Amino acid sequence: MQISPDFIRKLAATAAAETLPRFRCNSEVANKAAGGFDPVTEADKASELAIRALIRSEFPGHGIVGEEFGSENADARHVWVIDPIDGTRAFISGLPLWGTLVGLKQDGAAVAGMMSQPFTGELFYSDGVKSYFEGPGVNRVLATRSTEALANATMMTTTPALFTGEDKRRYDSLEGSVQLARYGTDCYGYALVAAGFVDMVCECGLHSYDIVALIPIIEKAGGVVTTWDGGPAENGGRVLASANQKLHDAALAILNN
Amino acid sequence: MQISPDFIRKLAATAAAETLPRFRCNSEVANKAAGGFDPVTEADKASELAIRALIRSEFPGHGIVGEEFGSENADARHVWVIDPIDGTRAFISGLPLWGTLVGLKQDGAAVAGMMSQPFTGELFYSDGVKSYFEGPGVNRVLATRSTEALANATMMTTTPALFTGEDKRRYDSLEGSVQLARYGTDCYGYALVAAGFVDMVCECGLHSYDIVALIPIIEKAGGVVTTWDGGPAENGGRVLASANQKLHDAALAILNN
Repeated sequence: MQISPDFIRKLAATAAAETLPRFRCNSEVANKAAGGFDPVTEADKASELAIRALIRSEFPGHGIVGEEFGSENADARHVWVIDPIDGTRAFISGLPLWGTLVGLKQDGAAVAGMMSQPFTGELFYSDGVKSYFEGPGVNRVLATRSTEALANATMMTTTPALFTGEDKRRYDSLEGSVQLARYGTDCYGYALVAAGFVDMVCECGLHSYDIVALIPIIEKAGGVVTTWDGGPAENGGRVLASANQKLHDAALAILNN
Repeated sequence: MQISPDFIRKLAATAAAETLPRFRCNSEVANKAAGGFDPVTEADKASELAIRALIRSEFPGHGIVGEEFGSENADARHVWVIDPIDGTRAFISGLPLWGTLVGLKQDGAAVAGMMSQPFTGELFYSDGVKSYFEGPGVNRVLATRSTEALANATMMTTTPALFTGEDKRRYDSLEGSVQLARYGTDCYGYALVAAGFVDMVCECGLHSYDIVALIPIIEKAGGVVTTWDGGPAENGGRVLASANQKLHDAALAILNN
């Protein structure tokens, strides 16, 4: 199934109307985690509600799954997967690396999606055929890098603190194989893989709504997204995204060594 | 000495003319470090040359120190300190968190400075009296947060890999005392302290040109910047920047415990 760029732009604008006015406002942050810190803001909730309403009116037969408000009609052939603010920690810290993620699954496979960053005015999306960037002064088709050697690769992850125990040993081994590792990137790192500015993202503990929207954006730009054991990444978990198959294979070999 | 906002805007525009066209262009990256990776780009060099020329023509008696082209007249009473691209790793990775830093020292003390991020269109600066933000849709005076307890604080650092040995033990102890730690921020983290969105930045191994511009921006917004032993931070090294004196004292106590 293809999604029109106009609908994708409408999704981004609808989300931005709820998130951007609340960005850098020092407004209230609630904590979802007992004994930990899992922030959620009014912006998360308002944005998800607005996105759900838009999808419901345009595709009434489709299912919807979102981070804040759960599942509706999740057994439908087409299911939209929403993270209204991926990177809530970045959002509440004033960093412009959070994004709104909306992805579409068909028969379980991610087929189209968007990541929008309204403060920088950037939209990365796949309509199901190609991937595109629309931003300040630039509209273009996305294409990933051709880097094939880990020794020349730049890798991103949100924080190395994601990894513990055996996952940490596996991640550290991969990080030690690349030229440059950068932290703090959330969904923005995946968008940069699709855009051809970095080579990989390696993370664990992802939810479905953290990754479904990003899979088609990377894949239709020439990249590869799988779990660390090479399977489909739509359900999240341990995820590796790479600019191309050769680099991906090299990274999987290290992760599984 | 006060610096006019017009001159600061001219510095930012001059730097942006050299950096922004080269951002996200996958142009050549040279490596300054033997056996390591210390990237420098044409953008770093061209930007610093343009900034030097502007300062020389406006303040011919002043000294200039820059990351890429060393010192000239560094014994002058007034010395400008330039990092044309703070966060070159972010720059070459397509992340919009790098910035151009230009600071002014008078008799050794940082008295005015600017951090500009041309992709997001943001300018954080101090004219020597107050600190200001100019960005998309917002011009305002900067003021730091009133957070006094480490347990409520958000702290940033560029990467925990900065810290080794005893420094790492001291940093980890501070990170373990705060509510939220975020990585990957370079100069942008300090600007967010001045802007009142986060509470602290803790780093080590800084050069003078990494911090001189940022000290007045934070201090004139109500914050505090010192080395980990509480001394002046103008020469870099181990640096702690905090939203206010009480939080700063609490953090120094942990770092020196």
